[in-house]
Amino acid sequence: MKKIINDPKNVVRDALYGVAAAHPQLRVDHAQRVVLRGDAPRQGKVALVSGGGSGHEPLHAGFVGPGMLDAACAGEVFTSPVPDQILAATKAVDGGAGVLHIVKNYTGDVLNFELAAELAEIEGIEVKAVVVDDDVAVHNSLYTAGRRGVAGTLVVEKIAGASAEAGASLSEVADLATRVNAVTRTMGMALTSCTVPAAGRPTFELADNEIELGIGIHGEPGRSRVPLAPAADLAQMLLDPILEDLDYGGSEAVVIVNGMGGTPQIELYLLYAEVARILAAADIGIVRSLVGSYVTSLEMAGASVTLTKADAELLSLWDAPVDTAALRWGVRG
Amino acid sequence: MKKIINDPKNVVRDALYGVAAAHPQLRVDHAQRVVLRGDAPRQGKVALVSGGGSGHEPLHAGFVGPGMLDAACAGEVFTSPVPDQILAATKAVDGGAGVLHIVKNYTGDVLNFELAAELAEIEGIEVKAVVVDDDVAVHNSLYTAGRRGVAGTLVVEKIAGASAEAGASLSEVADLATRVNAVTRTMGMALTSCTVPAAGRPTFELADNEIELGIGIHGEPGRSRVPLAPAADLAQMLLDPILEDLDYGGSEAVVIVNGMGGTPQIELYLLYAEVARILAAADIGIVRSLVGSYVTSLEMAGASVTLTKADAELLSLWDAPVDTAALRWGVRG
Repeated sequence: MKKIINDPKNVVRDALYGVAAAHPQLRVDHAQRVVLRGDAPRQGKVALVSGGGSGHEPLHAGFVGPGMLDAACAGEVFTSPVPDQILAATKAVDGGAGVLHIVKNYTGDVLNFELAAELAEIEGIEVKAVVVDDDVAVHNSLYTAGRRGVAGTLVVEKIAGASAEAGASLSEVADLATRVNAVTRTMGMALTSCTVPAAGRPTFELADNEIELGIGIHGEPGRSRVPLAPAADLAQMLLDPILEDLDYGGSEAVVIVNGMGGTPQIELYLLYAEVARILAAADIGIVRSLVGSYVTSLEMAGASVTLTKADAELLSLWDAPVDTAALRWGVRG
Repeated sequence: MKKIINDPKNVVRDALYGVAAAHPQLRVDHAQRVVLRGDAPRQGKVALVSGGGSGHEPLHAGFVGPGMLDAACAGEVFTSPVPDQILAATKAVDGGAGVLHIVKNYTGDVLNFELAAELAEIEGIEVKAVVVDDDVAVHNSLYTAGRRGVAGTLVVEKIAGASAEAGASLSEVADLATRVNAVTRTMGMALTSCTVPAAGRPTFELADNEIELGIGIHGEPGRSRVPLAPAADLAQMLLDPILEDLDYGGSEAVVIVNGMGGTPQIELYLLYAEVARILAAADIGIVRSLVGSYVTSLEMAGASVTLTKADAELLSLWDAPVDTAALRWGVRG
């Protein structure tokens, strides 16, 4: 295992020191491992709390800031944050208008966020939750009942965050987040495994000419192992299950070509070119796009494609100002 | 070789299709493989042209836009762009106030930019050049006479770009770029090799517990191969030669912890925490920082640290608005 770390047991703790040092506009609760907006709580604003296992950076801490999340809870690598963390984050950001939990659909995450929500309700904080399950690859997995939450989580967090910033109520923000999840689909693939620091060995093995299609962001199995193919064919393999699952025909979409952590930008642009070509032929207009590594699996080589069917309201909220470490537009200074 | 590509011969061409599709505010000359500001040429503004071998993305195309570069020339992977490309870029962006070439110090790049400058001068375009050589690792290498240009190029491009945007003359921008280069130092390391697509095999081999200290961004040899060490020690190994080479003591610095392409963000933040700790102990204030993969070597795992000694003028230009694919702040919309 070759990683730029100190003790494998302290990777999350040590990385959070770096997040704090690099981003003075954020506040890091090192005891609870929660990354917060520096100006939290915002009185009267619905607050958004997300989080999950670490190793998917910039998700979620990189999306904390005005226009997106109020707090992110960092679990151990590929391990759900615990209820105490989530409760601490919920209390720290509550500005009296309620708190939305944005939860990726993994059994541990869903359970721990539910427990934290119950504890918060006891303390008088209104909490709603949206469970993101955008991954079309598999319906159940090692970590889930139902579909997994993957890169589409970014879209839910961005659009719900803009709505909260604009003053929507907790019910409105929760309904909107649910609606975004319902029109968002993702499919991914891995070219290599990743290595969880505490495990010290690759999560799985792939042959030299083999990819895992439908990979999960923890390296859990996908749909099938197939031979490595040209990027044009890979793009088709990623888009086919998305387009079979939801009718995007004739509509406009926000498209994300997301790197898994170990795939360089030149390959992501190359894949995006193929995705754009296929979508143009399918009469799907790309209205906004991101090409980069946003929802990762440590150093895994691979990529995913996400499509969100966009209407005028969703697009306007996507375009609204956001000021976070990893997504930033529409703001001065 | 596992990469998301089509034909290894067409990687640069195919990736530029993706750059064009993802960034409608840019214009891509596919015949010449030049990425341009959409609004080039800007009359009366000094224009900045950079470029180099591909495989270092987002450098340079990711830095084209208001406040930074006017054009970037994409050579084949790890191969200098040819004089015709550079000439085409120079002519396309010249707004009558002259053109600055920002050249990383590699023999081929320096020669080809010089030839292009001579051809441009014949056509009546005034050209000056700055050669960036921020890498403290080695004084000569497989690709260079003298020090190599590496991640510090980003700082030169950002600050010179801001100066040009503010209306400085060609001489002023060139002098400023030279001054930034003179106060910028970088040191890098590799944990793994990378594979040039056309070669099809790793550029070099490292043992499982070994790193290459002072690696070049083409995988060319550095200072030494040493055992992999904890991040705290790695940070010291990267900073020592920088601090021995230029006295940063008591001053303020812009600091970049840069990923080589295959190293995930969680490790870069962890390394940044160690860098920040060492610099604080050395009484060097970090006034601005970047933590991410900006100047890469395909999928190489590894990182570099860059320090630029900052005064009020350089800091003000660093903070000036920039609107590019990979660096963006201070702008609305």
